[in-house]
Amino acid sequence: MAPRTTTPDEPDPETVFDRLDREAERRDRAGLTRRPPTRSAVESTLDLAGNDYLGLATHRAVTGAAADAARLWGAGSTGSRLVTGTTESHATLETELAEFYGTESALVFSSGYTANLAMITALADERSVLVSDRHNHASLIDGCRLSRAGLRIVDHTDPDAAANELSRHPGAGLLLTESVFSVDGDTAPLRDALRVCRVNGAALLVDDAHGLGVLGEGGAGALTEFGMRAAPDVVSTVTLSKSLGAQGGAVLGPHRVIEHLRQTARTFVFDTGLAPPAVAAAAAALGVLREQPGRGARVREVAEGLHRELVRRGVPATRPGAAVLGIPVGGANAAVAWAAACLRRGVRVGCFRPPSVPDGDARLRLTARADLGPERLTEVAAVIAETAPEGTG
Amino acid sequence: MAPRTTTPDEPDPETVFDRLDREAERRDRAGLTRRPPTRSAVESTLDLAGNDYLGLATHRAVTGAAADAARLWGAGSTGSRLVTGTTESHATLETELAEFYGTESALVFSSGYTANLAMITALADERSVLVSDRHNHASLIDGCRLSRAGLRIVDHTDPDAAANELSRHPGAGLLLTESVFSVDGDTAPLRDALRVCRVNGAALLVDDAHGLGVLGEGGAGALTEFGMRAAPDVVSTVTLSKSLGAQGGAVLGPHRVIEHLRQTARTFVFDTGLAPPAVAAAAAALGVLREQPGRGARVREVAEGLHRELVRRGVPATRPGAAVLGIPVGGANAAVAWAAACLRRGVRVGCFRPPSVPDGDARLRLTARADLGPERLTEVAAVIAETAPEGTG
Ligand SMILES: Cc1ncc(COP(=O)(O)O)c(C=O)c1O
Ligand SMILES: Cc1ncc(COP(=O)(O)O)c(C=O)c1O
Repeated sequence: MAPRTTTPDEPDPETVFDRLDREAERRDRAGLTRRPPTRSAVESTLDLAGNDYLGLATHRAVTGAAADAARLWGAGSTGSRLVTGTTESHATLETELAEFYGTESALVFSSGYTANLAMITALADERSVLVSDRHNHASLIDGCRLSRAGLRIVDHTDPDAAANELSRHPGAGLLLTESVFSVDGDTAPLRDALRVCRVNGAALLVDDAHGLGVLGEGGAGALTEFGMRAAPDVVSTVTLSKSLGAQGGAVLGPHRVIEHLRQTARTFVFDTGLAPPAVAAAAAALGVLREQPGRGARVREVAEGLHRELVRRGVPATRPGAAVLGIPVGGANAAVAWAAACLRRGVRVGCFRPPSVPDGDARLRLTARADLGPERLTEVAAVIAETAPEGTG
Repeated sequence: MAPRTTTPDEPDPETVFDRLDREAERRDRAGLTRRPPTRSAVESTLDLAGNDYLGLATHRAVTGAAADAARLWGAGSTGSRLVTGTTESHATLETELAEFYGTESALVFSSGYTANLAMITALADERSVLVSDRHNHASLIDGCRLSRAGLRIVDHTDPDAAANELSRHPGAGLLLTESVFSVDGDTAPLRDALRVCRVNGAALLVDDAHGLGVLGEGGAGALTEFGMRAAPDVVSTVTLSKSLGAQGGAVLGPHRVIEHLRQTARTFVFDTGLAPPAVAAAAAALGVLREQPGRGARVREVAEGLHRELVRRGVPATRPGAAVLGIPVGGANAAVAWAAACLRRGVRVGCFRPPSVPDGDARLRLTARADLGPERLTEVAAVIAETAPEGTG
């Protein structure tokens, strides 16, 4: 037990975190306490909540590569990428990622989250102005907050609003957007975004976490989809944790940008390198995609089919730009109840409620899977429609 | 290639990142460009640069567990810990970590970096004042910058300076320190720190990245070493990437603190869960430590032996509190040359230069390894002493 050095004059150490209990009560009363499910190795539910769109997390080539890497390189990378944390496997993965994605260079991080922090803080300085889509992911928002740049939040997927902000800061702008938005699955108008960037001497920063493996020919991602491979003024981040089924992230872009990050990005310099099993798994997943370039198109078809089946049954799902569909629900309790009802019927869906989404804006989130056949898809849509709360649609 | 939509009125997209070239030139001229080594699977050099103090990254029980987990659970966790990213193996690791470390609860993150961001941003709000040691790690600094709390930087390991700041904000303070400082390897006076916290109703936040596995009976970490297990007003972070040889991080503390983080910490909620191979590797490493509780003491002995041998030869190494020793050098070029000379003699040491350390304050960083026998240790000390630049010591 703790040594109690408290004397009568000193505060009771137990009280230091008392406010947390009050916050927990408030959360409970509002129905916002989350009770994350624990997955077991054998699951009978159909998972439409995870981001393993292509089924590669459990693909034998991928898990086998992870297992071999643990034995060859060790379970961890043992240090910062600048010290002992860069193995040959890291260098190879970076070369392969850049080639696959269509940029000069790539730099691998321990997560997509830290890749985003790196991209933003290394590229934006106190003279920069970050123009950021209102729906951008938490890691992008945190990157903006960490940087010393000015920050303007603009309306969702509104190139005119972005143009307006960028035009006030010619040459200093960085336009920041997701390619496929993580909760609703809609896509950003990237060509318009690049155009307004170029008019204003700005750079375009794209978080392609949900585009890699799904968008573009062969799943090469958003820059391929939108015809802007190798653009000298575009920098992307991807994650290795979604369609590639592993863990980690990467920043991809022109050589000079990547070199700058290698030298200066704090989450590169001061973080342990990605573990070799994840490095090898991501590289193997890229290998599967090169051999089976149709997986991305297949998952888009499934997402569109699911959308069609849901809408036909009166469920107001958002039109998917890639593998993700959102279903607006409204109240947090209704969303939780709907997700629970789906689960009882054997289908796991994601449930987003405040503070992950704005108040009163709770939603279900579904992810398409490449291995979902047409029959199963119809079944799943029926389950979701039949469990919908009164008044949906 | 990029679609060039540039018209005569628009800036050249190539110029957007021009300033990066100028920064690269400046870095080159100042000798501050880092050229990270790439490790191959078979290395003949002796590694005194990595953080795999106990040799567990390549321990068969650890790599075997990582390999098995890849096959059983998959290469990645597939989603946020709140959605699909919590497997039974995550829950087990959290229970075992808390037990080993001596706190009520533990929460696992994808890295030590994101664990630190979580601890600070979830516990500090706009009414809080963070009092942070001048030598704290980049991830702690970033956590402070991300939080909405007030921030006071205090002199290194100076409890009086901390007390002074905390006393101005009774009940609102959070004192933030590493247990073992990552570059110089000195330890913080944690008992004094806890005392000044209690006098002022503050909480103590300890980054025990370099303490876990090394300090305390059985390698249980700094809270055990300093007799403050289960303290209700202390929260720690650890990494799974150093003495445990894997990847990831954890926050450890009272149940209500950990629950609060589970519900609110952005790098928990919005980040993919740690990959199962890393989870399993860390759990297996804890198992090895439980079976061989002397490993931590052994590495401390080696560190002290190395310090003794270096000092005897006139090398001004810092006294190690755990497994890390620093050697102040001064100029960046001298430090780089010294590290390169060691490497030519078969010994890899870390080399820290600006911006990782203040200007003119470059240093070598050595890490002790549990498997370094007395003879090899004498040899290594001789190599370091013989390659020292003129005027060292
Ligand atoms: C849009 C977006 N960016 C970044 C991330 C972070 O990636 P990671 O989970 O690999 O850290 C995520 C998901 O977690 C995401 O959805
Ligand atoms: C003191 C300290 N805290 C946190 C970290 C971050 O841990 P990780 O590398 O596991 O993200 C490190 C090292 O990288 C460290 O030295």
